[in-house]
Amino acid sequence: MQENRKWVLARRPAGEPGMADFRLETAALPQQLAPGEVLCRIHYLSLDPYMRWRMNDAKSYAKPVALGEVMVGATVGEVIRSESPDYAPGDMVLGGGGWQDYAVLPAAGLRKLDAAAAPVSTALGALGSPGFTAWAGLMKIGQPKAGETVVVGAATGPVGAMVGQLARLQGCRTVAIAGGAEKCAYAREVLKFDAALDHRDPLLKQKLAEACPNGIDVYFENIGGKVWDAVIPLLNDFARIPVCGLISQYNHGNAADGETPMAALMRDVLVKRLLLRGFIITDFAADRDEFLRYATPLVANGTLLVREDIVAGMERAPEAFIGLLQGRNFGKLIVKFV
Amino acid sequence: MQENRKWVLARRPAGEPGMADFRLETAALPQQLAPGEVLCRIHYLSLDPYMRWRMNDAKSYAKPVALGEVMVGATVGEVIRSESPDYAPGDMVLGGGGWQDYAVLPAAGLRKLDAAAAPVSTALGALGSPGFTAWAGLMKIGQPKAGETVVVGAATGPVGAMVGQLARLQGCRTVAIAGGAEKCAYAREVLKFDAALDHRDPLLKQKLAEACPNGIDVYFENIGGKVWDAVIPLLNDFARIPVCGLISQYNHGNAADGETPMAALMRDVLVKRLLLRGFIITDFAADRDEFLRYATPLVANGTLLVREDIVAGMERAPEAFIGLLQGRNFGKLIVKFV
Repeated sequence: MQENRKWVLARRPAGEPGMADFRLETAALPQQLAPGEVLCRIHYLSLDPYMRWRMNDAKSYAKPVALGEVMVGATVGEVIRSESPDYAPGDMVLGGGGWQDYAVLPAAGLRKLDAAAAPVSTALGALGSPGFTAWAGLMKIGQPKAGETVVVGAATGPVGAMVGQLARLQGCRTVAIAGGAEKCAYAREVLKFDAALDHRDPLLKQKLAEACPNGIDVYFENIGGKVWDAVIPLLNDFARIPVCGLISQYNHGNAADGETPMAALMRDVLVKRLLLRGFIITDFAADRDEFLRYATPLVANGTLLVREDIVAGMERAPEAFIGLLQGRNFGKLIVKFV
Repeated sequence: MQENRKWVLARRPAGEPGMADFRLETAALPQQLAPGEVLCRIHYLSLDPYMRWRMNDAKSYAKPVALGEVMVGATVGEVIRSESPDYAPGDMVLGGGGWQDYAVLPAAGLRKLDAAAAPVSTALGALGSPGFTAWAGLMKIGQPKAGETVVVGAATGPVGAMVGQLARLQGCRTVAIAGGAEKCAYAREVLKFDAALDHRDPLLKQKLAEACPNGIDVYFENIGGKVWDAVIPLLNDFARIPVCGLISQYNHGNAADGETPMAALMRDVLVKRLLLRGFIITDFAADRDEFLRYATPLVANGTLLVREDIVAGMERAPEAFIGLLQGRNFGKLIVKFV
């Protein structure tokens, strides 16, 4: 009987994980598959930063890994046995097999891979979730336009490298943030970013400003912490910030551990997929007629109540305004001159 | 010759403005109008919190008022003289006349008002920028769905009152934040919010949680500071936060004055109209085919470079993962089992 080796979560790490947080166990391969299941032999396991978060016992977009449970992860594997009409032994499939030699997986969650179209391992990277993440965050949220400046955190990682290359294809100036001289050189020379900065550089703020002479239009947030602090002052009007990851914050737990309010907000923006958008009413000038068509009859027939706080006399404007800031008005404050 | 009285900015206030920050001056009415200009006698002046910001000498979405310059503001006035074919004496017009008895205004920036459709003063409130702001922020950014919970800051003000009423018309549970018992009672009893809370209540956090048993789906941000702090933990997945105003922060200047990083971020979100959006790749599942169609040929032909960092041996997964969190990998980290 064949053995299945599996890495389980031995304990929840405090800060950076260490070897003692994992334990290698062995178990027998299952003898029976339920209808619709397949047994896969894992060939490739993807390791990704999000897994650090899953090791914490904290509310997130996905359940934490339980103690003693196999570590989760995307895998490319070969079908060994199948109880699904859609898969046969020998098929290569993308699935969530986890950190183990063999996995029993529901066929409904698998994707069949064509080794002729691209190496199957790319289904874990450029053509898998990292590449798709880069594309979706950049194109659907960032919406870069030619000539704009796009700054990319963790820029030589599988997500960041795709973001930078996709942004360059859109005609953008691209600025990489990466860790260390070698990665920065790779970002500039191979990935063709226009500039690359080391996030550990004590002069990061200043150098980022120099690398972005026209400000920042899209910041693809993958890091959090100090890099985000350096980016904020350089953001242009109408800048977009797809919040994809916060790797600098993953080794911390949550607000109870002394997380700053900013870090906690960014964590919530990511985990809860929040949308914050500032606006000034002139941004919506094109919609004013739609509003007036909708609201005018509702105001006229009393469906929408209107309360005005009218102050009589032009000479009382400053006094009324001072009261407004102190919350003393009640309803729309208007000064009647005539 | 008629006189024009005007309130000018006498000095830039530090914190709350006082009477000494304004000065009433008089001047002669202009004798000549340029082509396309009209002279208006102001009947109504709108006072709005944004004006406090315009008194600061700080970069914002609009220029600060210069010292000695007339305070800005939206007005409803009567045309007295016209050099525009579109306006005749007696017409009532909405424009930016400012804090003065008479204003010379370019006809191109005016809107003619129909007193028969609604009282002309509503052009400054429910049917003017405040009402339009409420509608655009709620409907275009907040996108409330029936059954969702919408929390509204400054809820009895001209913007907030409209937001709450519009959200109720959409079938939402509405929760008002207002200043003082009288305004809270008005929000509940007249504006028909489901609940109303005093932002000065020391138990605001707890009471807000009680008033939002299903969390918060839309927070219409009009206040900033402590109310925002109380809202954050209650936000549901995919919550939307239209950032419309930050009245609790207007009496402060900018980061140099010791503004917290969170307050500074929110100011930037508002002033620069930033968009922050967290996402998890599964949110875009419907777009995966579009991505694969676009990216697969680009990966295959080398337009998009792919770098994989392959670690051989299932037993090395934890060590490779620990290295990933320390930034030691270079390219997509994959463990090759077979």
